[in-house]
Amino acid sequence: MKCAVDIESRDIEEMYINIDPIQAGGRLTADAMKAAISFGDGYSVCDNCRNPPRLDYIQNPPIAQFHKDLAAWLNMDTVRVVPGARRGFQAVANTYVEKGDPVILTSLAHYTEFMAIEAAGGIPREIPKDKNNHITADAAAEKIEAVIREFSKTPPLLFVDHVDYQFGNIHDVAGIIKVAHQYDIPVLVNGAYTVGIMPIDGKALGADFLVGSGHKSMAAPAPSGLLATTNEHAERVFRMTQAKGDVTGRSFGMKEIEMMGCTLMGVTVVGMMASFPHVKERVKHWETEVTHSQAVVDALLSIEGTKVLSDYPRQHTLTRIDTSESFDKVAQQHKKRGFFLSSALKKRGITGVIPGSTRVWKFNTFGLTEKQIRYVGEAFIEVARENGLNII
Amino acid sequence: MKCAVDIESRDIEEMYINIDPIQAGGRLTADAMKAAISFGDGYSVCDNCRNPPRLDYIQNPPIAQFHKDLAAWLNMDTVRVVPGARRGFQAVANTYVEKGDPVILTSLAHYTEFMAIEAAGGIPREIPKDKNNHITADAAAEKIEAVIREFSKTPPLLFVDHVDYQFGNIHDVAGIIKVAHQYDIPVLVNGAYTVGIMPIDGKALGADFLVGSGHKSMAAPAPSGLLATTNEHAERVFRMTQAKGDVTGRSFGMKEIEMMGCTLMGVTVVGMMASFPHVKERVKHWETEVTHSQAVVDALLSIEGTKVLSDYPRQHTLTRIDTSESFDKVAQQHKKRGFFLSSALKKRGITGVIPGSTRVWKFNTFGLTEKQIRYVGEAFIEVARENGLNII
Repeated sequence: MKCAVDIESRDIEEMYINIDPIQAGGRLTADAMKAAISFGDGYSVCDNCRNPPRLDYIQNPPIAQFHKDLAAWLNMDTVRVVPGARRGFQAVANTYVEKGDPVILTSLAHYTEFMAIEAAGGIPREIPKDKNNHITADAAAEKIEAVIREFSKTPPLLFVDHVDYQFGNIHDVAGIIKVAHQYDIPVLVNGAYTVGIMPIDGKALGADFLVGSGHKSMAAPAPSGLLATTNEHAERVFRMTQAKGDVTGRSFGMKEIEMMGCTLMGVTVVGMMASFPHVKERVKHWETEVTHSQAVVDALLSIEGTKVLSDYPRQHTLTRIDTSESFDKVAQQHKKRGFFLSSALKKRGITGVIPGSTRVWKFNTFGLTEKQIRYVGEAFIEVARENGLNII
Repeated sequence: MKCAVDIESRDIEEMYINIDPIQAGGRLTADAMKAAISFGDGYSVCDNCRNPPRLDYIQNPPIAQFHKDLAAWLNMDTVRVVPGARRGFQAVANTYVEKGDPVILTSLAHYTEFMAIEAAGGIPREIPKDKNNHITADAAAEKIEAVIREFSKTPPLLFVDHVDYQFGNIHDVAGIIKVAHQYDIPVLVNGAYTVGIMPIDGKALGADFLVGSGHKSMAAPAPSGLLATTNEHAERVFRMTQAKGDVTGRSFGMKEIEMMGCTLMGVTVVGMMASFPHVKERVKHWETEVTHSQAVVDALLSIEGTKVLSDYPRQHTLTRIDTSESFDKVAQQHKKRGFFLSSALKKRGITGVIPGSTRVWKFNTFGLTEKQIRYVGEAFIEVARENGLNII
C-alpha cells in the first residue's frame, strides 16, 4: 500500500521483532492508536479550551487531570507536556543558564543536552565516567570543584542521565544530586530511558527537574515528552509572560514563556494520555523486562568472542554489545561484508540492528514477549553457528 | 466509544460543520489520516536514518525530498520542519535577539511572537494598526525610527503577520519588509494563516524568514510547522553545533542547535507530507474559499445590526464579526443568555463559535463545500429570524 507522495506504509512493528535501541519504548499501545485516529486533526484538543486558555487546563479531553496524574505518578509537584524531552532540556537551560555560564553534564550525556546548553549560551563540562562506564557522585563532586575553579562561579545547572543512551547503565543519580545540592546546583534528571519504562520516583532521587520522552519511552507519537519539577522551581521555569504591548496594552494572561504558550495540541498529548494507564502498568513488570534483556545478552555471550560493554548482569533493556571478535570476523570474509548480520536477522524477522554494524552496536529488548525473547536469542546463535562461530 | 482513561472519541469533524477560527486549516486529509495510523509509533520515521543522522536527510520516508519540495513551493531557499510555528519564532528570536534588544512586531501580532521574544530576552515593540485594522509600511517606518531613538540601536528582528489572527486581514508585508530592509532589519513573516491556505511566495514578499503552521493550516497533526529562510540567513539560524565534550572530545556532527537536533520524528512530519499534495492543490482554489467566506459574511450582514470588523469585501476565510446589536440583544432576553447562539447552531449541526459569545467573535469557513456554506449562511439567518431579529 502506498500513501500519496510515495510514503510507503510502515509495517516494521507488525512484520518484525524490532530491537532498535531508540524505538522500543515508543511503540503505540492500541488505545494510543485509537486516540491518534480520533485526535489526528491539528488543534483537535482545543474544542473545549476556555478560561484560562491553556493546554494544561483543558478538562475534555481530560488533559488537566492527566497533568495531575503524571506529577503524582512521578512523585513530582508539577508537570508540563513538551514536544520531546529535548524541549524540556531547552526550557530549563534557557531559564537557568546565562551566556558564558558553565553547565555540567556527563561523559554519557545525550547530545540534545549539549544542544540545549549551547542554545542558551552555556559552556558544557562533562563529568568523567569511571572504568565501569558509570558516573559517580565522587566524580561529580570533583568536576563541580574543577568547574568552580575554572570559571570562578558555580554552575547554575547540572544534567544527569538516569540511564544513559550509550550503555543503558543505571547511574547513582541520587548520590550525584546530593553532591550537587551541597553546592546549591539544581539538577535536571534526563529520564528519556526510564520514565515510562521502569519505576521512577522523582523525590526519592532528589530531582529538581525530571524529563521524560513520550516517543521514546511512553508509547506516544512524536514529538512528545514531559518536564516535571518541584514547587521550589515551578514558578521560575514555568514563569508566566510579563510581556505587554506598548501600543495596545495587551497582556497574555497565564501563558508560560518557556512553553511558548501551549505545546501539544492534538494527537501527541492524547496519545500520551491513552497510553498512560498501560505505561503505569508496564513499569510494574520491569523485573521481567530485565530478565528478558539478560536472556538475550546471555545468548549473545554464548557466541565465542562476544563481549557485553554494558553492566553485567543487565539492569536495563538497552544494551551495548561488542562483536568485534565474533560477528565482525565473519563480516571480513562474507560477501555481504558487515551487512550479513542485519540481513540474516531480517530473514528471521528481526530488525533494528543498524545495517552494516558488526563491531559495537546496541539493541533494546523492551516490550518483547517471552517467546520473542527466546526466538531472538536463538536467532543470534543460529546466525553465529551458520557462519562458523563457536558457541560456548 | 470510550478510550482508556475516559478519553471520549472526538467526532466534531464527522458530526458537525466546524467553523472554529483556528481549526479549519488543520483538519487532516484522508491521506494524512492513513499516514498517521501507519506512523503513529514514536520514532517511526527513524527506521532508515543513517548518515548524516538528521531528520531532513532521511530518504525513506522521503523527508529529504519533502524539505526540498516545501522550500521550492514557498519560493524560499531552505526549510526545516518544527513543532509548531511558535517553535520557528523561538529559533529565530533565540538566534537574532540579545538580552535587552528591542524587537518589533505589530499590534495584531500573535501572542506566541511575544513569547519567543520574551524567552530570548528581547523587548517587544508594536507597530500601531491604522483605523482600518491594517499594519502599513509607513507605520512600520515610523515605529522603526521611534525604536531606534528609544534604544539607540537598530532592532535585530521584525515580526509581521501575513494575515493576522484577529481580523483575518491581509497586510502589506512586501511594503513593510521593504522598509525594514532599508534599516537592515531581517523580517520574519508569520504565515500561520496563509501557508497551506492561500498562495504565498516568500521571495516576492522579500521574507527573510517564513513560518507556517502544520496543525493550523497544513492539514497536519500537532505540533507541526515549518521555518523557511534564505541562503543569506540559513547558516546562522540553522547553525550546526560547535559543542565539544571537554572530557570525551565528543562532537555532534551536523546537528542544528536551534532545532535541538531533530524535530518531528513521526506522525507529525509524515502527516504534513501526506497532506502536502492536497495542500498544494487547495491553495490554487483560494478564490473559491474567499467567495465562500464572503457568502457567509453577507448572510450575517443581512441580520439587522450586524457589523463585520474584518476587511470587507472579505479576502480571507477568517472573519471577525460584531453582533452586539443583533445576537447580543437576543442574548440579553434569552433564558440561555449568550449560550443561545452556539446552542442554536449546534442543534443545526454547526460548531466552532465559542459558547456564550454573542458580541464580537470569529469564525473560519475554510474548507467547507459550496453546500455547507449555503447551509451555514441560512442557519445564521434562521436563528436570527426565530429570535425576532430583522433580516434586511
